[in-house]
Amino acid sequence: MAVLIRNEVFTCFVFYGVLLVLKMYAIAVITGQVRLRKKAFANPEDALRNGGLQYHREDADVERCRRAHNNDMENIYPFLFIGAIYSMTGPYLAVARLHFMVFFAARVLHSVAYLLALRAPTRSLAYVVAQIPCVSMALQILVAVAAYA
Amino acid sequence: MAVLIRNEVFTCFVFYGVLLVLKMYAIAVITGQVRLRKKAFANPEDALRNGGLQYHREDADVERCRRAHNNDMENIYPFLFIGAIYSMTGPYLAVARLHFMVFFAARVLHSVAYLLALRAPTRSLAYVVAQIPCVSMALQILVAVAAYA
Amino acid sequence: MAVLIRNEVFTCFVFYGVLLVLKMYAIAVITGQVRLRKKAFANPEDALRNGGLQYHREDADVERCRRAHNNDMENIYPFLFIGAIYSMTGPYLAVARLHFMVFFAARVLHSVAYLLALRAPTRSLAYVVAQIPCVSMALQILVAVAAYA
Repeated sequence: MAVLIRNEVFTCFVFYGVLLVLKMYAIAVITGQVRLRKKAFANPEDALRNGGLQYHREDADVERCRRAHNNDMENIYPFLFIGAIYSMTGPYLAVARLHFMVFFAARVLHSVAYLLALRAPTRSLAYVVAQIPCVSMALQILVAVAAYA
Repeated sequence: MAVLIRNEVFTCFVFYGVLLVLKMYAIAVITGQVRLRKKAFANPEDALRNGGLQYHREDADVERCRRAHNNDMENIYPFLFIGAIYSMTGPYLAVARLHFMVFFAARVLHSVAYLLALRAPTRSLAYVVAQIPCVSMALQILVAVAAYA
Repeated sequence: MAVLIRNEVFTCFVFYGVLLVLKMYAIAVITGQVRLRKKAFANPEDALRNGGLQYHREDADVERCRRAHNNDMENIYPFLFIGAIYSMTGPYLAVARLHFMVFFAARVLHSVAYLLALRAPTRSLAYVVAQIPCVSMALQILVAVAAYA
């Protein structure tokens, strides 16, 4: 294995990062299942194959899945970048793991709250809590970069 | 060149990853061309410059391009992360290249099937085939991380 | 700090990359503020908490924020990949910094032009200018990969 993988903090980051990517894949699968169950397809060619053009339509449950997925793209992708760089700045393992675990747990809660339409502000709180370690890591990276420059 | 680039698997990954990013740029350009040809602009300021506010409207072909682009963001971005990490876990070059090539070919087919509205389930099959190497790499990463921990 | 961070070009890239991620976070915060001010919520559960289901509705200003955010996802995320790889190909620091600075400045202008609805084609020009260093880096990476292969 390459040098990076031998870094314990990076390994910990990779573990949570990959799990979050798999979580996003799961939302894509759920979206597809909801489309089939509710018979609501974004493309006429899909509708034609599944009963007719009348099923080329929007559906509230499908849109909810899509918003959950989109919010993941807005937040988990930046984490994959910020977390990787942060892992290279030499943080204490326990501190780094705390950052990753808080983000991971909050984003899982965010998905659950979104898909099940839990009462507000559960989902928004999960979003805010997940942003805290991200902003913390971003600032620590900027400090590390400034210290080196 | 840095150490990572000297890794043959990583070099192979970078080759396909960069081509896929260029493919996404191409879809953005196509979307813009379709907007101009169909006169359908998402912003009133763009419509004003191109004939008047009546062209601030949606268009089925533009929306199709946007869905193709969005699906790329849902799938190619995770590949750029998963593939980079996987390259660092020491896979056999031939096995790794197979993963990258299958993903690349399936995602190119996905774009073609989307933009040309090929008969279902061509596009969906391309999506599923592209996911196979991604899930395979994700699982191999988790095994590698577990082996190290 | 790990080896990568000791690379001056990579450090420069990280600086601009992290600032751009923070810029994206800012757009998310602005979107949320506009939703509250215009009382336009994407989810019924949010509307219920903020005055009633009649506020589960779309709003032109909110959609503008969302388009700005989505365009960032289409362009800044690829930069985070392309820029990182490019930093590992051994470019001159001054040349690399120019690539990063042009992208950074153009994307900040893009956000300002989008959110303030500046007259066309300000926003489109910013988009095109930002793409130039990205395509330049992508081609340089392909040349570097080919040279190694």
